[in-house]
Amino acid sequence: MLYLVGLGLSYKSDITVRGLEAVRKCSRVYLEHYTSILMAASQEELEEYYGKEIILADREMVETGSDKILHNAENEDVAFLVVGDPFGATTHTDLVLRAKHSNIPVEIIHNASVMNAAGSCGLQLYNFGQTVSMVFFTDNWRPDSWYDKIWENRKIGLHTLVLLDIKVKEQSIENMARGRLIYEPPRYMSISQCCEQLLEVEENRGTKAYTPDTPAVAISRLGSGSQSFKVGTIKELSEYDAGEPLHSLVILGRQCHDLELEYLLEFTDNREKFTNDVRADQEYFKPAPWVPPTEPADE
Amino acid sequence: MLYLVGLGLSYKSDITVRGLEAVRKCSRVYLEHYTSILMAASQEELEEYYGKEIILADREMVETGSDKILHNAENEDVAFLVVGDPFGATTHTDLVLRAKHSNIPVEIIHNASVMNAAGSCGLQLYNFGQTVSMVFFTDNWRPDSWYDKIWENRKIGLHTLVLLDIKVKEQSIENMARGRLIYEPPRYMSISQCCEQLLEVEENRGTKAYTPDTPAVAISRLGSGSQSFKVGTIKELSEYDAGEPLHSLVILGRQCHDLELEYLLEFTDNREKFTNDVRADQEYFKPAPWVPPTEPADE
Repeated sequence: MLYLVGLGLSYKSDITVRGLEAVRKCSRVYLEHYTSILMAASQEELEEYYGKEIILADREMVETGSDKILHNAENEDVAFLVVGDPFGATTHTDLVLRAKHSNIPVEIIHNASVMNAAGSCGLQLYNFGQTVSMVFFTDNWRPDSWYDKIWENRKIGLHTLVLLDIKVKEQSIENMARGRLIYEPPRYMSISQCCEQLLEVEENRGTKAYTPDTPAVAISRLGSGSQSFKVGTIKELSEYDAGEPLHSLVILGRQCHDLELEYLLEFTDNREKFTNDVRADQEYFKPAPWVPPTEPADE
Repeated sequence: MLYLVGLGLSYKSDITVRGLEAVRKCSRVYLEHYTSILMAASQEELEEYYGKEIILADREMVETGSDKILHNAENEDVAFLVVGDPFGATTHTDLVLRAKHSNIPVEIIHNASVMNAAGSCGLQLYNFGQTVSMVFFTDNWRPDSWYDKIWENRKIGLHTLVLLDIKVKEQSIENMARGRLIYEPPRYMSISQCCEQLLEVEENRGTKAYTPDTPAVAISRLGSGSQSFKVGTIKELSEYDAGEPLHSLVILGRQCHDLELEYLLEFTDNREKFTNDVRADQEYFKPAPWVPPTEPADE
């Protein structure tokens, strides 16, 4: 049996009881280690907690070495651990399909992921549009396809969850070119850097999918003991020091219900200003709310 | 301390280890009992598992009787259990705000909810738009505001998660009018009824947000041992017997990546037909993909 087990967001004890029982009976335990990290538990702590040695699985192992992971899993129990949920931000459908095609039974043990726990900022998950990813810009790679997606969301009033890049076990271009297996220290995008990139692209595009005054929510260390939320405009958050990783950002949509706003106001020292910012952003997008044409198929 | 604890989707052991530790030290334990149910565990089993008596909290108690729930929570530990995640489909921000305003510390213990576990059908959570709810139609109440939302999602290529109504502890109109506290047996919407209501409204509206041939995924008993997925057109699923509750439906967006499709094909006996249905639905919406106007603010 292959168990795909979500670990949740932060603590070793965020695993479900059912998940823990599964892990403890497995003969091999892999931990997916390139899309997220468990904030409040080290590999050693997890190993002690599970009573099992953990094999770290980097992108290469998962994408091209899955035979190793699945080896003999039709006869023994193997666990593949994923921070958050196995089908959260990064889906592991490929591994599941490979297992199925090798007649290996698969059991998924779900858990919280940022995709649903982000609701704890007070914005309703119902009102979120598509999720986007913000990657670290480099001198010559500044991808901005997320811009149109934020715009699409905001045109129909929806909030946008922005997932911030993390770089674990990445090589520098020089080391990669020279074939040297030397890895850079891990990097986690900060709220301020994300907001700076948002502002840069908006300035270049100039089509006002959002403005520097658009309200957003900085979500930091979600689900951990030092979890924090901070609301402000994108401009304000571009100067905000949110502390240790991990971070996510939510850009508000045009629809912000009174109940949502009331909850967000817990996360600012200046309730009046933020209320005005939200109202102004909503006004800004009026009368723009997108009205569906009457004949979509013939458009 | 007020603990809001997500129970996950199905088994009593779907609670996280941290959640279970919290519940076991609480002096009062409430279970939110009107928006969802835990499929594979009865109240008695949960009570035995926690070693605690459980107080069922219906809508009335949560919305107007929260003083009772929060009573003395500044001095003792109280747990409020929610199937799924406390900030999933139904948010409990109101209860959290009341607690905060009474200086009661609050700790949220997240878990999987349908909002993220739906990803296990193989469609990427990134590509989902806003979530909609489908309620039971009655003779004179057939709300269809969800129709425009599905359309908005599909216009920008996104999948739509449809949450199906459940009725727990509801009164008949006659009993309500007469003030009799007699409750109807619980009802859970089936996949076929949901699809019938989809077809009815599309026929009335006639603006083709989707058609009878639009592909969809029936998700049944998500996270339980008898979990099942079935793909088909809305018309086909309107005749599909998905078995015991709970159910959800995902209506495909125009964008269906090859990896998503490959996974979905596991859930049909007729891979070729479903592939053609998906292709045809994508074609149907071409060249309609919504192109953002260049000046959103002046539209």
